[in-house]
Amino acid sequence: MTPLTDSTPEQIDSAVRAAQAAAADFGRSAAATRSALLRALADALEAERASLVPLADAESHLGPVRLHGELDRTAFQLRGFADQVDAGAPFTIVDDAAVPGAPPAGRPRLTRVRIPVGPVAMFAASNFPFAFSVLGGDTASALAAGCPVVVKCHPGHPQLSRATVALAQRVVAQQGLPAGVFGAVEGAAVAVGVGLVQHPGIAAVAFTGSLRGGAALARVAQDRPQPIPFYGELGSINPIVALPAALQANGPALAATLAGSITLGCGQFCTSPGVIVVRDDAAGQAFVRQLAEALAAATPHPMLHDGIRAGFEAGAARLTAHPGVTTLVAPDSPDGAPRARLFTTDAATFIASHALHDEVFGPSALVVTVRTLTETVAVLDAVQGSLTVTLWGAEADAPENHALVRAAERIAGRVLFAGVPTGVAVTAAQQHGGPWPSSTAPFTTSVGYAALDRFLRPLALQDAPEWLVAARGLA
Amino acid sequence: MTPLTDSTPEQIDSAVRAAQAAAADFGRSAAATRSALLRALADALEAERASLVPLADAESHLGPVRLHGELDRTAFQLRGFADQVDAGAPFTIVDDAAVPGAPPAGRPRLTRVRIPVGPVAMFAASNFPFAFSVLGGDTASALAAGCPVVVKCHPGHPQLSRATVALAQRVVAQQGLPAGVFGAVEGAAVAVGVGLVQHPGIAAVAFTGSLRGGAALARVAQDRPQPIPFYGELGSINPIVALPAALQANGPALAATLAGSITLGCGQFCTSPGVIVVRDDAAGQAFVRQLAEALAAATPHPMLHDGIRAGFEAGAARLTAHPGVTTLVAPDSPDGAPRARLFTTDAATFIASHALHDEVFGPSALVVTVRTLTETVAVLDAVQGSLTVTLWGAEADAPENHALVRAAERIAGRVLFAGVPTGVAVTAAQQHGGPWPSSTAPFTTSVGYAALDRFLRPLALQDAPEWLVAARGLA
Repeated sequence: MTPLTDSTPEQIDSAVRAAQAAAADFGRSAAATRSALLRALADALEAERASLVPLADAESHLGPVRLHGELDRTAFQLRGFADQVDAGAPFTIVDDAAVPGAPPAGRPRLTRVRIPVGPVAMFAASNFPFAFSVLGGDTASALAAGCPVVVKCHPGHPQLSRATVALAQRVVAQQGLPAGVFGAVEGAAVAVGVGLVQHPGIAAVAFTGSLRGGAALARVAQDRPQPIPFYGELGSINPIVALPAALQANGPALAATLAGSITLGCGQFCTSPGVIVVRDDAAGQAFVRQLAEALAAATPHPMLHDGIRAGFEAGAARLTAHPGVTTLVAPDSPDGAPRARLFTTDAATFIASHALHDEVFGPSALVVTVRTLTETVAVLDAVQGSLTVTLWGAEADAPENHALVRAAERIAGRVLFAGVPTGVAVTAAQQHGGPWPSSTAPFTTSVGYAALDRFLRPLALQDAPEWLVAARGLA
Repeated sequence: MTPLTDSTPEQIDSAVRAAQAAAADFGRSAAATRSALLRALADALEAERASLVPLADAESHLGPVRLHGELDRTAFQLRGFADQVDAGAPFTIVDDAAVPGAPPAGRPRLTRVRIPVGPVAMFAASNFPFAFSVLGGDTASALAAGCPVVVKCHPGHPQLSRATVALAQRVVAQQGLPAGVFGAVEGAAVAVGVGLVQHPGIAAVAFTGSLRGGAALARVAQDRPQPIPFYGELGSINPIVALPAALQANGPALAATLAGSITLGCGQFCTSPGVIVVRDDAAGQAFVRQLAEALAAATPHPMLHDGIRAGFEAGAARLTAHPGVTTLVAPDSPDGAPRARLFTTDAATFIASHALHDEVFGPSALVVTVRTLTETVAVLDAVQGSLTVTLWGAEADAPENHALVRAAERIAGRVLFAGVPTGVAVTAAQQHGGPWPSSTAPFTTSVGYAALDRFLRPLALQDAPEWLVAARGLA
């Protein structure tokens, strides 16, 4: 396949300038304009499914079933944001009438509106070639907010990226919108991403990717003469706490479900469970045996690319070599596709070893055995930040469950009481982003309709003339 | 007067640990607990007015009329946040019912709540010894959100700070709350502020002060092992665009009003107008003459302290020495209190000279003469970021006013169409914070009830048990 070529500084500048030129009009476009664009993008994705999915499969190894499902999700998401726009979400207003008299009670009329921040640089991820790539949630939410987007294509799926970019640009033209509403740059060189973030015409950055890359780009955004918001979704180890109540009731089924979640997509999910906290008792030991058996039997598909595979093997080797960690499942002879790994350690070792808190991206998990509630809470606190924490068996209204929920809430953006963290529903209530390092901006979400809020800056209009208030949708 | 002593690292640690110990229970406290605390703080401030205002006057030179008004505003603000708490603002929930079926349409139940972020470090400002100091808006909004506060007192008003801290701690105890709900550190050394921001127990920082200090502390917050949000309200030059329509109708009155705003509080307002954009025509020239006369006659009170005075003189000297700038008003012989300054330059010089975009904190303004709408827009674009932009005479529904409003919206957090930017109403619609450098977090506000949002992190509960949903106020 043809790799992406690195966009030149001139090409980056040209893409951002086109976005800047389109920003004012698109930022004031009507709801119908934006929702029609989003729906047309969804329709076009579905219409080109037969050519896009094979391209994606060839470049990602994720398989047609998953990729068709992911394309469905991406189209669903684009239409979901269209619904949000039609319902007026980007145009919310708070209107405080004037109050006669001296301050502090007396006040002028103040009308709080939200304005699109301007051109958004969107960094596509490798592991979801549709849902977190060119037309994924970041692009959908930015367009819904009225912001032009300049996508930095992921070099892991170059042909799919080019095909999706071409599709998007065709739809933008068909909708009668300026080309600058949707632009793209490409390339694997660090300079491409840095150049995009540093461009003075970029107003915000949305990023899904590695902790290392995200932290570096967040610093670039902060070090600009005019710093801009950097919405980065980075690494996460997604602890699952399997309490005795759940294991006694349902241990074997949970072990099978968990093995499926760990190996889903070859573990290449930001919500893949990386740490399993179990009591060191008979039920816990049986559960770990069942989990180990299921993982040993699993046959994940190949990883996205050689770099990710090398990173996975390096992470697994780090755990294998750790003096306080025991290997429970490891392949005899790794071949084309990686095999699942399972490791175990105790709470004290986990808490003391910062290296064990790093994400291993791929089908691997670390069992942490605990003896007490206090140890469980301490393990969660050691994790510091995670997209999700899952609590199995915390249904009872009991003090120990209250303490566990508090600990989970401290470190996570989403707390689950059933099921597995892989799979992130696109809804108004969703929160995909927890404390650092899982997000650089844990007050915002990159999945779900609140993702809009990242691109709408609040603005107060004081004593605004009637024409301006009317243009904002107020009488 | 006794200067503040520098809190030791042990004292800082002790204050933050006490806040951490109080955070879980206070974060789950009922609305009635928080609103009672906020109202009791307001009551105590008013009850001790007779001792607090003279202390503040001795340390700030702001005069009893202003300081009584500022105390009123501070009490109003505390009660306003109490009303917000009683109305449930910190406890908002989005509840998405489960939808049966396969994803993407099928989904689990997701309940979006907001949880207090934890202990907040609050840096008091010098220029509002009540409203932006120990019990100012940052403290009020953090307490309303359920976050303990550790105030870094401003060394400019040490006795008032100590008296207000003592008052707050007394009220906290009377309300039966742990002392850690409200703590304080003090000192002028950089190490005190840096040590507070670096403490791992601090979860967010609220800051009002200089661009230099704020940018440095924002970097400290970003460079922590676990970065935290830094809500900094920094420098702003608050352009006023005086259009011919306004000057023809009302020039002399506007000149008098503007002179009052420039010299209010000796110019020590973050919203003080620093740049006045006028057409280079007869009406504009007459307006500038009237403004110059009013400023020459003004007798501001002394500045807050010698350091601020020195900074003002240095800023005025920079303008005086600039080859493209003409001095219109300058005192013959500066004495104890500074006299107002007025300078003028043309659009091209302003746009080309970055040094002219820096705030001069004090009673000084720079008139920028323009010949065209295009030049006016270019002057606003050169400013980049400001708390406010004021447009006088933009009432007509005309293309040139649309263009001006767009330019103002691009760079400001608040756009005014009448009056002056000094004076910031505390309402739901208020937005105090525009693009950098006026704020490090322009998606948030430090004044008005949306200030609460800075301290409430969103969290999605997936398939939450009934006891947890009930505790969050849902059936």
